[in-house]
Amino acid sequence: MTRNIRLLIAYDGTHFSGWQRQKNVPTVQGAIENCLAVITREHVHLQGAGRTDAGVHALGMTANFRTTARIPCPGLLKGLNSMLDPAIRILAAEEAEEDFHSRRSATGKTYRYTIFTGRIQSPLERLYTAHFPMHPNAEAIRLALHHIVGSHDFSSFEGSGSRDVTRTIGRGGVRTIYRAEFLAGTGRADIWFFRFTGDGFLRHMVRNLVGSLLPVGQGKITPDAFAALLGSQDRRLAGPTAPAHGLVLEQVFYEPIAS
Amino acid sequence: MTRNIRLLIAYDGTHFSGWQRQKNVPTVQGAIENCLAVITREHVHLQGAGRTDAGVHALGMTANFRTTARIPCPGLLKGLNSMLDPAIRILAAEEAEEDFHSRRSATGKTYRYTIFTGRIQSPLERLYTAHFPMHPNAEAIRLALHHIVGSHDFSSFEGSGSRDVTRTIGRGGVRTIYRAEFLAGTGRADIWFFRFTGDGFLRHMVRNLVGSLLPVGQGKITPDAFAALLGSQDRRLAGPTAPAHGLVLEQVFYEPIAS
Repeated sequence: MTRNIRLLIAYDGTHFSGWQRQKNVPTVQGAIENCLAVITREHVHLQGAGRTDAGVHALGMTANFRTTARIPCPGLLKGLNSMLDPAIRILAAEEAEEDFHSRRSATGKTYRYTIFTGRIQSPLERLYTAHFPMHPNAEAIRLALHHIVGSHDFSSFEGSGSRDVTRTIGRGGVRTIYRAEFLAGTGRADIWFFRFTGDGFLRHMVRNLVGSLLPVGQGKITPDAFAALLGSQDRRLAGPTAPAHGLVLEQVFYEPIAS
Repeated sequence: MTRNIRLLIAYDGTHFSGWQRQKNVPTVQGAIENCLAVITREHVHLQGAGRTDAGVHALGMTANFRTTARIPCPGLLKGLNSMLDPAIRILAAEEAEEDFHSRRSATGKTYRYTIFTGRIQSPLERLYTAHFPMHPNAEAIRLALHHIVGSHDFSSFEGSGSRDVTRTIGRGGVRTIYRAEFLAGTGRADIWFFRFTGDGFLRHMVRNLVGSLLPVGQGKITPDAFAALLGSQDRRLAGPTAPAHGLVLEQVFYEPIAS
């Protein structure tokens, strides 16, 4: 009997060339598939809910794979965690419905992007927080964020290269953003983070949004100019792509998302 | 004119073989001295307030060096930070009194040791937090901590190897601990930390204290048995040395410390 097993995965992307398996470079998918091959004695394909770029982290990636191996889920979880580098942790392993597909069944994702705004960044925070020395105008950023909530063509913020195909067929660059927040770090005046929940994200979309929202927080462009940028659907007008290491995939949803 | 310059330094110890310069391995002292040699065009000796072991972090190491170079302190700070790996940051640089000596002038230090007590550790916290799955009895640990406050011979908790010579002449294994705390992480049920402030610490002393205090928190030994261990001055009775990566040198003091 073929089982369909669902994994909840966290990883530190610092030393990985992203999620997707590639030859001769360390990837998260590759690392887990290699361990699964040992445990199941089968060639296993691990289907992720999406790809993350090199250097991007995850606290709640979901993936699934099919196997005829009989190892119970708790043993699988324990076995994987004992074999994997601690930069990757399997947080949960469970039997899924036969038709569960981590990418196609997903209803949305939440990404967080964290910035340090002070002058000198703590070495203990540098791997997970991007450094943008500034005094962000949080109200201006929030006004800009209002413009992205809802369904829009986000082509202005799409990176070059192949498109993430999550639920995109026939949608072009249109995605629906349910929530977009800019919040201060708990008890910190120099840590801020963006949090975006949407039904899908174009390649580099969160990092490109952040790259154009920070100039709003610096007063370099107005929230209205940001809205015009979104409306232009012209990538050349947008700001730079914010660095990968500030980005964390927090959660993948499989239920309807309340907006 | 020879200047005496004082640096405040933070570092991620993960990839360093400790503070002290050694041949053919990366050390924090070595990395900073190499940059200082380029900036000052002199052979510079950087005197640290103490050594930290391989893998131990610092948020507030203090060090000083003498130079005839005329570069103002703000330029020195900027130059060092632009040359150094971001795993090391110079937080402050200032002119010190002629007789200031970062080790001999120190009146004490604060160390923090952080543990994660849950079942599966987040990859994003693994480099700075030691993993001890347990439900710590905080009250038992605090009772044990009461016993170490004050002046005691801490030989039971001294590592083998050379002794840190900070203010030790004639003191043997006696050190004075002003404060010893065990606190829950803010908003977290699975993060706890120890914080010790004392006039000096023997080699591996904090890590050895933690290695014997955690069994108190697990109910394996009583606070009174811990006190007897301290009184025994016999290293063989103490618990294992807790791992380096949970330890952070938070602060070095140069003023009288209120207990």
